[in-house]
Amino acid sequence: MEYQKILDDINAELKRESFGGKVANYIPELAQVDPDKFGIHLSTLDNGDYFIGCNKERFSIQSISKVFALTMAYPMLGEKLWKRVGVEPSGNPFNSLVQLEYESGIPRNPLINAGALVVSDVLVSNLKNPKHDFLRFVQKLAGNSTISYNEKVAESEKDTGYRNVALASLMKSFGNIENLVEEVLDFYFYMCSIEMSCKELSQTFLLYANHGKHFVSKERILNASQSKRLSAILLTCGFYDQAGEFTFKVGLPGKSGVGGGIAAVFPEHYSVAVWSPKLNKAGNSVLGMEVLERLTTKTGLSIF
Amino acid sequence: MEYQKILDDINAELKRESFGGKVANYIPELAQVDPDKFGIHLSTLDNGDYFIGCNKERFSIQSISKVFALTMAYPMLGEKLWKRVGVEPSGNPFNSLVQLEYESGIPRNPLINAGALVVSDVLVSNLKNPKHDFLRFVQKLAGNSTISYNEKVAESEKDTGYRNVALASLMKSFGNIENLVEEVLDFYFYMCSIEMSCKELSQTFLLYANHGKHFVSKERILNASQSKRLSAILLTCGFYDQAGEFTFKVGLPGKSGVGGGIAAVFPEHYSVAVWSPKLNKAGNSVLGMEVLERLTTKTGLSIF
Amino acid sequence: MEYQKILDDINAELKRESFGGKVANYIPELAQVDPDKFGIHLSTLDNGDYFIGCNKERFSIQSISKVFALTMAYPMLGEKLWKRVGVEPSGNPFNSLVQLEYESGIPRNPLINAGALVVSDVLVSNLKNPKHDFLRFVQKLAGNSTISYNEKVAESEKDTGYRNVALASLMKSFGNIENLVEEVLDFYFYMCSIEMSCKELSQTFLLYANHGKHFVSKERILNASQSKRLSAILLTCGFYDQAGEFTFKVGLPGKSGVGGGIAAVFPEHYSVAVWSPKLNKAGNSVLGMEVLERLTTKTGLSIF
Amino acid sequence: MEYQKILDDINAELKRESFGGKVANYIPELAQVDPDKFGIHLSTLDNGDYFIGCNKERFSIQSISKVFALTMAYPMLGEKLWKRVGVEPSGNPFNSLVQLEYESGIPRNPLINAGALVVSDVLVSNLKNPKHDFLRFVQKLAGNSTISYNEKVAESEKDTGYRNVALASLMKSFGNIENLVEEVLDFYFYMCSIEMSCKELSQTFLLYANHGKHFVSKERILNASQSKRLSAILLTCGFYDQAGEFTFKVGLPGKSGVGGGIAAVFPEHYSVAVWSPKLNKAGNSVLGMEVLERLTTKTGLSIF
Repeated sequence: MEYQKILDDINAELKRESFGGKVANYIPELAQVDPDKFGIHLSTLDNGDYFIGCNKERFSIQSISKVFALTMAYPMLGEKLWKRVGVEPSGNPFNSLVQLEYESGIPRNPLINAGALVVSDVLVSNLKNPKHDFLRFVQKLAGNSTISYNEKVAESEKDTGYRNVALASLMKSFGNIENLVEEVLDFYFYMCSIEMSCKELSQTFLLYANHGKHFVSKERILNASQSKRLSAILLTCGFYDQAGEFTFKVGLPGKSGVGGGIAAVFPEHYSVAVWSPKLNKAGNSVLGMEVLERLTTKTGLSIF
Repeated sequence: MEYQKILDDINAELKRESFGGKVANYIPELAQVDPDKFGIHLSTLDNGDYFIGCNKERFSIQSISKVFALTMAYPMLGEKLWKRVGVEPSGNPFNSLVQLEYESGIPRNPLINAGALVVSDVLVSNLKNPKHDFLRFVQKLAGNSTISYNEKVAESEKDTGYRNVALASLMKSFGNIENLVEEVLDFYFYMCSIEMSCKELSQTFLLYANHGKHFVSKERILNASQSKRLSAILLTCGFYDQAGEFTFKVGLPGKSGVGGGIAAVFPEHYSVAVWSPKLNKAGNSVLGMEVLERLTTKTGLSIF
Repeated sequence: MEYQKILDDINAELKRESFGGKVANYIPELAQVDPDKFGIHLSTLDNGDYFIGCNKERFSIQSISKVFALTMAYPMLGEKLWKRVGVEPSGNPFNSLVQLEYESGIPRNPLINAGALVVSDVLVSNLKNPKHDFLRFVQKLAGNSTISYNEKVAESEKDTGYRNVALASLMKSFGNIENLVEEVLDFYFYMCSIEMSCKELSQTFLLYANHGKHFVSKERILNASQSKRLSAILLTCGFYDQAGEFTFKVGLPGKSGVGGGIAAVFPEHYSVAVWSPKLNKAGNSVLGMEVLERLTTKTGLSIF
Repeated sequence: MEYQKILDDINAELKRESFGGKVANYIPELAQVDPDKFGIHLSTLDNGDYFIGCNKERFSIQSISKVFALTMAYPMLGEKLWKRVGVEPSGNPFNSLVQLEYESGIPRNPLINAGALVVSDVLVSNLKNPKHDFLRFVQKLAGNSTISYNEKVAESEKDTGYRNVALASLMKSFGNIENLVEEVLDFYFYMCSIEMSCKELSQTFLLYANHGKHFVSKERILNASQSKRLSAILLTCGFYDQAGEFTFKVGLPGKSGVGGGIAAVFPEHYSVAVWSPKLNKAGNSVLGMEVLERLTTKTGLSIF
């Protein structure tokens, strides 16, 4: 497959069209990002690396970090994890407090905020030094020890993240948060502040294309069943209230973040990450969605 | 009207029947109350005082305190208060987080928890020394300077009140809480921990039977319109999800608390307080509801 | 009390101000009404009749008819009626299908559409000739045998009333409608098409000011307890999602209709009806609400 | 791949274990089915046919028919179809009336009842003789002209399907149903009453494994993009409120029906149908889910 040519063609097409979208602005650190930043990086299991634009520039991965948290927590609890968080799409156009209340504090899945807070709680309970240990884990997955938190972003989120306080407190009232709400939120906000480049994200996501085995070190991070199940969750729950549409148009398991990043994976073939900060109403990168839709159309490859 | 005879008759009737209900047990301090405690006190605007049982024993007035908080906050903001909290019954069988989310952080009325948190926020913003000043205000209304908070109760509520943290945090995320969530909650939990007797509650509620003028000191606390409006809110919103049923069966403005107290008022005639700790599923005192229903039936007096 | 002077003053005041509102337009028959029609009629228990404007012109009473249906059905089933329909305010800003679904087909109260459909079902089950017998009953209450249905209005409602079909079908699926959905809807739409004047409405509502006894014929229509309870329902549920606000500002039991009519009652004193077709967003007559608020302010009389 | 051996192994395993579940009983025709009926049929794109049990006995395919209706309607409207029905999982534990009301009569996806009613409305609008033409279409897909409706089942559904009347009426009130509610429901209930065997279902579903081209006739029924998108909808929405769990555990696009059937597809490889009438709480065949989970585990093949 001529991936570089396909990426070049997509890039050329996108330049001829114009797209809307708005940069996330609920914290100053995200609002200040150059809205025109654009990068793609695609890594194949046969050692190919293809890219466009600023694929090596780091940005705030935000919710994409939830995938790494889940990757770390899942083997810790095994299938018991699913007693505390579901695997169903949230499907709620309003938002998660409603469903969380109706469903007695059990979040629908680990990729919505409420679910990621439960996963954070698992990590806080099981790690000696949660923030430190989690960062090490991500560095190991990415094969790069310079990846780090952006403390300013984390602290800004803390100052405005009252809805996350509400989610964690509601779950605490149902007994589904073990640690102090403050501790869990502190971990969660740091986790979301991690910065990575498209290249780093893409190479890290090769793990899921490779059935849970690290592509470089060959270390088994998830067993084959866990890797398959995590990919299934990415497919059905990875794009907020647009998960169905993403599956419909793109057909790859993936995850987006409000920093404008999207990482996705074509099992047994490749992983890909895109970065473009302008978001649609559902909070997903406009260009990111476009790139991936065109990629699967042009390659003719999808899981269906 | 022979109020004492009517109260005696009710008391005799109730002794011959048996009733269910369960004492509130979410904090140890409430759970330890003797479930068989029972008191009634009725005060008339023509200086009558009629009572049954332990009418002078203090108990945790809990949500009844929301009426006093509203009485203090309403004149501070005047009708502007209703931009931050509504006057409609909540009518939600599930609970208030759902509605609060749909309605962008504006609670339906000042007597549900979310609304009382907004009222608390108003008091925290407008009082120099909120807890101290509010207690003084209640002491003044009751004409008794020994009324006080129960700190143990307040601290226990803090340890378990995660749902209230969720409510306040959600409203904060919508910009409807001005102060720190912790500060507002601290005030709120202390406010709810006030202890008063049926006699004290009844005499304090005479205010609302007297169109807002203190019955003893003659000080005007609310103007006539404010007093009428506050009574209207008590009628439509005073009994959680049983407000309609209370109006239907009893037909008096009133307010209940999970400590087992109910205070109600028959405008221009009398006020009455009942205490019996066993609650129905809606969180209202079983015997309290019975006493007031029989009282309005036997007197033939109600607002309808 | 100088009621005529008060009505004249209100009329003069309203002429100096301007008010918004929109005539109901979901069926042509309502849309064609002159938006500036205006009438008031107030009847007292001491034989007074006071009025303004076109108090003798008939209009579509719409939901006000639900009060008469309840008045006829309540004595048929007695308190058993409340197993099929609640007495709590609906309080749902969205609308009644949601609550009806959560609460297994039991409508919150008899004055929302779903509840009035259950009341209609009771009448269809218990009357030989439902539409004929109900009209006779209303004629008797009003003391006027020329009152009738507007068939064109009823048929128009049928053509557009899909939401009512949905409500009735959902309740049928829960077993809370005994008769065929079509039959119940046919009755319901005819019931809502009754036309009466302010004078007729006011004189009919004297019944509820008179504890359930017909003011002219002295026939007992409801017993005192039923009359009190029906008034309580009017107070807490009579104005759609503005019931709390109406109680707060006006403080009288009453009922509005989308034809622009409002009828209300001050127990033991008077009844009053207003007609002005322009509605606010909640579906209540703008001027009707204004008139009643000013009436209770100027008379200084309310139930609180 | 030794499919027959794998099916035999699964069959042997299942016989050693015991499973719960309850036959659908809301209409007598479904309730009377022998609960122990069991059949599997797997068809591969390289002409293999493998089976267990009563794979040739027909049963009521119920909601599986929604897939065929969508297959017929999608090419009629093309992508315009998605203006009238979404592609997102419903994710609502309560049920679809709520979401339908919040989302102004646009169903979340074409596989929930509300969405299938919209698809039915499209077919009623676009077919000369809707019931006849649709049946012909299914016969063509299955390559068998003896497939037919079960009129008794269809008529029984009509007598009890008030919730579907409610759904259709609510959408009609929002303008999202073009034809008469009765007509649409008549078509819908007949559509769901089609009877097919596992063998017929499996061979029909080969279409979706074959990118939209009929496996035998080579006729193109859906273009490649439509086939991919329909499969994506099956994956995210095919199993009511268990869609996420099915994707998580099985990882194949598929559809279940309350008659106890499940049909699924592994793109470019095989299709499979299972029949066992006992259902779990979500309305999916207990054994059907088990068989498919074991099948993907034993073959090691899934889309992830």
